[in-house]
Amino acid sequence: MDKVAVLGAGSWGTALAMVLNENGHDVRLWTHLKEHAEEINTTNKNQSYLPEVTLPSNLVAFNDLKEALQNVTSVIFVLPTSAIRDVCRQVAKVLDHKVTIIHGTKGIEPETLKRISEMMEEELPKHLFDEIVVLSGPSHAEEVSVKHPTTVTASSKNIKEAEKAQDLFINQYFRVYTSPDMVGVELGGSLKNIIALGAGISDGLGYGDNAKAALMTRGLAEIARLGTTMGADPLTFVGLSGIGDLIVTCTSVHSRNWKAGNLLAGGKGLNDVLEQMGMVVEGVRTTEAAYHLATTQDIEMPITKGIYKILFEDADPKEIVDQLMTRMRRHEMEDLSAILSDRYRT
Amino acid sequence: MDKVAVLGAGSWGTALAMVLNENGHDVRLWTHLKEHAEEINTTNKNQSYLPEVTLPSNLVAFNDLKEALQNVTSVIFVLPTSAIRDVCRQVAKVLDHKVTIIHGTKGIEPETLKRISEMMEEELPKHLFDEIVVLSGPSHAEEVSVKHPTTVTASSKNIKEAEKAQDLFINQYFRVYTSPDMVGVELGGSLKNIIALGAGISDGLGYGDNAKAALMTRGLAEIARLGTTMGADPLTFVGLSGIGDLIVTCTSVHSRNWKAGNLLAGGKGLNDVLEQMGMVVEGVRTTEAAYHLATTQDIEMPITKGIYKILFEDADPKEIVDQLMTRMRRHEMEDLSAILSDRYRT
Repeated sequence: MDKVAVLGAGSWGTALAMVLNENGHDVRLWTHLKEHAEEINTTNKNQSYLPEVTLPSNLVAFNDLKEALQNVTSVIFVLPTSAIRDVCRQVAKVLDHKVTIIHGTKGIEPETLKRISEMMEEELPKHLFDEIVVLSGPSHAEEVSVKHPTTVTASSKNIKEAEKAQDLFINQYFRVYTSPDMVGVELGGSLKNIIALGAGISDGLGYGDNAKAALMTRGLAEIARLGTTMGADPLTFVGLSGIGDLIVTCTSVHSRNWKAGNLLAGGKGLNDVLEQMGMVVEGVRTTEAAYHLATTQDIEMPITKGIYKILFEDADPKEIVDQLMTRMRRHEMEDLSAILSDRYRT
Repeated sequence: MDKVAVLGAGSWGTALAMVLNENGHDVRLWTHLKEHAEEINTTNKNQSYLPEVTLPSNLVAFNDLKEALQNVTSVIFVLPTSAIRDVCRQVAKVLDHKVTIIHGTKGIEPETLKRISEMMEEELPKHLFDEIVVLSGPSHAEEVSVKHPTTVTASSKNIKEAEKAQDLFINQYFRVYTSPDMVGVELGGSLKNIIALGAGISDGLGYGDNAKAALMTRGLAEIARLGTTMGADPLTFVGLSGIGDLIVTCTSVHSRNWKAGNLLAGGKGLNDVLEQMGMVVEGVRTTEAAYHLATTQDIEMPITKGIYKILFEDADPKEIVDQLMTRMRRHEMEDLSAILSDRYRT
């Protein structure tokens, strides 16, 4: 079995560490907070992120990064988008051998509009890895941690590396597929958080399931439109890391982005909402990034633009959602079929 | 404004009659039960199907079909699949002029494996209509009856007829699009009920949102695979009447098919479940039809086959769902992208 380091002890990092532990690997869970590592090691609990779960006693947390990375064959980055560059730089300083690099972060850097793997490639010296792998799909940490059946996609520019990640993680309840479209897999996972904010807002306004399903159908088209412009295969958006992840994030009570949208609909400002949530809400920064991409590249993204206005320009949620409903044109569905049709039929 | 007859005073027929009434049309809501018509006319309530709603007092219910159809310009069929042929025959006897024919029924005839419009074409004399229109999409009756924002698709072999339906129904909260792919729109609405039964079973087993999202992603691919064989455009399945309707039916508490699946997971037999539901559960008959289509035409439909075994062969729900999870192959996503890719890339 392998020695593996998981960097980031939030809910998803911890859940992935538990899967790896279940599969018999020697797992080192690194966190940047000393007290957090101590809490995990002394109580077998991660109270702030996965309060319901007792961690296996042989799952050890580390605060010393060099120690955590000693002799590992794989390193899994599961950090907020805003921490990726800094931790990569720290890893570059202390890692002294080549490893498989996997990440499970769903975001886009607002300042550069780069994907997670692009940020990582810029910060990690090339001799430390072959190609980065992304792991993404409909996977609430809370459910994975109690071994509910879950399926995800592993993708990389080098499919052999994606298969290494598959071998590492796959078991009876955690099913891993591979995909060659890394851009699509990374973008599907990131951009769907924008639509989840919208679904939370619609639900918070009491608009019901019909409206939410319409929003999600158009939302999928909208993020596929942006994704395709950025180099993704539009077909990836109809798979697990597209539709699958969109569904789970827009309809589950576990979703942070949905919850944040729900609170926004109640009239709270963005800062109050983020304070109340206490965890990173990736969709907020992703909306900012997508808004700038849509604006500079002239891509039609009415839902993203509406949510941006609610988040950053104090627009009234009800007014925005009502506009989105009535602006829908009479003879155009604005769904994913238009994009696929453009691409594959002409 | 138009004189319009709505045939069928279940929850969806009643909700559509309310939309037409809201739009200023003279609406006649026909029901085959005399007492039901009397209840609606005397109490302005439809207690069995839409108990929460007070009906507009100028929405009149009829039990006499000839009277209901007098001078109407459009007839909307909103009946269980099993009643379609019989009511069409009755209409053929008493209707004496050409009208626009629209239907809002989501099913397939198990004996003949025909779509609703195909059954209607067989029973209605050709001089009574031009081409049939189907109205389908993510639209729980309960929400439409309280004017929650809702979007649906109207489709017909003759797009002009679909546009007539659009003109009749469209308003501020009920948005109607048109699509030229009638086969895809009818099949998306019908076949998604199979997957909703499966989603209810998965939820009833306590398998969580990750498992349900994976099931829905694979389910969409499976129904698109059958639909494409039957002549649908696979792209229709990524639109409102495909993904949109699948989402709403699999995730909403209003869904009968989801509820029925939920009860089946609890160990109840099919007859007990149907008795407890008290309303038609179209997905049961649709599963039967799709199972026979998949078997005779050799189409890979593992979810449909599994649900068929639970419904009609007393298979254990947990065993079937576990099999579905573990049979998923390592290198094949089995999602809609494979179908679209086959069709459009080669």
